Amino acid sequence: MRDVAIIGIGMNKWGELWEKSLRDIFTEAALKAIDDAGVDHIDAMYIGCMGSGLFVGQEHLGSLMADYLGYGPIPATRVESACCSGGLSFRSAFIDVASGINDIVLAGGVEKMTDVSGDNDTYALATAADQEYEVYNGATFPGLYALMARAHMQKYGTTRKQLAEVAVKNHDNGSKNPLAQFPFKTTIDEVTNAVMVADPLTLMDCSPITDGAAAVILCAADLVKNFKRHPAIKIIGSGHATDTIALQSRDDLTYLKSTEIASQKALKMAGKKLSDINFCEVHDCFTIAEIIVTESLGFFERGKGGCAVESGKTRIGGQIPINTSGGLKSKGHPVGATGIAQIYEAVTQLRGDAGERQVKGAKIGMAQNMGGSGGSTLVHILEVI
Amino acid sequence: MRDVAIIGIGMNKWGELWEKSLRDIFTEAALKAIDDAGVDHIDAMYIGCMGSGLFVGQEHLGSLMADYLGYGPIPATRVESACCSGGLSFRSAFIDVASGINDIVLAGGVEKMTDVSGDNDTYALATAADQEYEVYNGATFPGLYALMARAHMQKYGTTRKQLAEVAVKNHDNGSKNPLAQFPFKTTIDEVTNAVMVADPLTLMDCSPITDGAAAVILCAADLVKNFKRHPAIKIIGSGHATDTIALQSRDDLTYLKSTEIASQKALKMAGKKLSDINFCEVHDCFTIAEIIVTESLGFFERGKGGCAVESGKTRIGGQIPINTSGGLKSKGHPVGATGIAQIYEAVTQLRGDAGERQVKGAKIGMAQNMGGSGGSTLVHILEVI
Repeated sequence: MRDVAIIGIGMNKWGELWEKSLRDIFTEAALKAIDDAGVDHIDAMYIGCMGSGLFVGQEHLGSLMADYLGYGPIPATRVESACCSGGLSFRSAFIDVASGINDIVLAGGVEKMTDVSGDNDTYALATAADQEYEVYNGATFPGLYALMARAHMQKYGTTRKQLAEVAVKNHDNGSKNPLAQFPFKTTIDEVTNAVMVADPLTLMDCSPITDGAAAVILCAADLVKNFKRHPAIKIIGSGHATDTIALQSRDDLTYLKSTEIASQKALKMAGKKLSDINFCEVHDCFTIAEIIVTESLGFFERGKGGCAVESGKTRIGGQIPINTSGGLKSKGHPVGATGIAQIYEAVTQLRGDAGERQVKGAKIGMAQNMGGSGGSTLVHILEVI
Repeated sequence: MRDVAIIGIGMNKWGELWEKSLRDIFTEAALKAIDDAGVDHIDAMYIGCMGSGLFVGQEHLGSLMADYLGYGPIPATRVESACCSGGLSFRSAFIDVASGINDIVLAGGVEKMTDVSGDNDTYALATAADQEYEVYNGATFPGLYALMARAHMQKYGTTRKQLAEVAVKNHDNGSKNPLAQFPFKTTIDEVTNAVMVADPLTLMDCSPITDGAAAVILCAADLVKNFKRHPAIKIIGSGHATDTIALQSRDDLTYLKSTEIASQKALKMAGKKLSDINFCEVHDCFTIAEIIVTESLGFFERGKGGCAVESGKTRIGGQIPINTSGGLKSKGHPVGATGIAQIYEAVTQLRGDAGERQVKGAKIGMAQNMGGSGGSTLVHILEVI
């Protein structure tokens, strides 16, 4: 396998983008990445998108976007793995360049989630759960994560306040991110007193419905010398693992097996230890998710994730800064774009361009992107060259 | 890039599989392929599926299938490119093994299309066209291909009878395929007198709505010596190209640019000429599609595809046998599975196992799989080692 580096990144302001269509949103981010890299062509592209069929009645995104971007007839591949479709797009592009079949490849992600009415968003998102065993019986994602939260609270004594601490920290970080959908700060009281969605999770424990896209440009590492606008960022580890998508089939609701395995694979490929990681973007689709993920990655012992966030260990300047971008919670969660936006943040940190939310001396970053209630996980490790 | 070979194939009987769910259908084909290869594990899997979200309310197929197959936590990736999702799954698995990241990889495709009511099938399939420029204005796929047929008839004098010849030939071939959905023979009169769908295309010019799956096992060529059940089949060429997905944006409705480019790429990688190809599976979603595809691949001059089928050049024993499996027309067209089923047929031919429909002395085969009205195309070339 050839070494692969990231030479360009692009992302638009996320939110409810009523004035833009799916193709507009993707193309805007993709063109920013191409411009940022300073490349005059791309050889191929990958697009992560979970639900454009149900959200806007459009599949066949690879061709649609390659054409609209002006890069047809290049090969264009859409990948889907629910909410980690973006992370999967990144890994697919990594494997593509590593194989030697292409030299310069765009990996993007997009979702337009606000163009549906009623509870169709909830239905579309629930297709990431097991339709026959979970959804048919009434399960929704807030409901599934609420089950995980209750199990974690019962087993480890995790508190309602500790869940809220995740939201407070991530909104603090997101308030320093100009691209975030909800760049405001919040408080423990605001989180705990917000409208209840699925006990114990309130509205402020949940990531929002978002329109948005992000894109990055990957390049064979031996060609990086031709693109010197920015420090090149090398992809040193990539891990991908699956688990049952139905919660009922798992031994333990308080732990994410796919996340642990994907992380171990990525660390092994990178030849690094967890203590080498300077910051990590994780998949905080709900506040409880961040706590369980930080434990499953191994940053904290099982059951200690709640205490860790409460004591400030995951803040910028703490033991291991988590979700400096604001995470899904504050930045937004256009499901297919989230995994690429994590890479966008990691590259921004490793370039030293993160401004007020910069992690000092960041050399190695990790991104963990997860589908459904952990049925699939992608973990990537990046290092500034 | 490492050389890659196919060591196992699996497919179930296609049709209206009311008694089986999406996961049953896929798993059946996948287990057949694993059994056929004689492998005791797989390192990763790819699944081509176009519309499971709209057809059965289920996304996140990679994890679902890896788990149900009993192979979790392996990496599992779902790819989508409309009706060539299967071909894209195959290419993705090829790149994966070629990169060196995995040694033994399953590439599968599946679609369950009969579990919807009313005209929801037509809506789900139309998401492969341009929602904003075509579908919103009333276009359906039979309508789009009818436009292409009328243009071809006007420009080249292609006749109604020549379109019917495609259906007659493919049903002749399909009648010898025990896995085909409609393994009956038909006649010119039956095709031309069938109920009109979109003038000039009758019901018998259209591929059917089908439930089905297919799977193949890919392996690094240097490991093939460990699996000797069957002659190994080497993947010598892979081409992938895109075009506008909206017909309105094309210069010429009688030609498929993505097919020509993908074919040229595959031939170049293989170091072969078109005259080296002994047979070809093509994407005959409608009878006119086979005619235009055989021209765009270069087997016949533009405008001569209709005469070619009428004169028997594309029959088994003819100049270049096309769709020995029965094609989409007779075998069925579960859209995400079709591209893999083409590989299944090509391997069957190259192993010499095609029985009554065997192409004598077949050494090199080609498969062309297409999305939408040609917005994307995958072309693969296989050679028996």
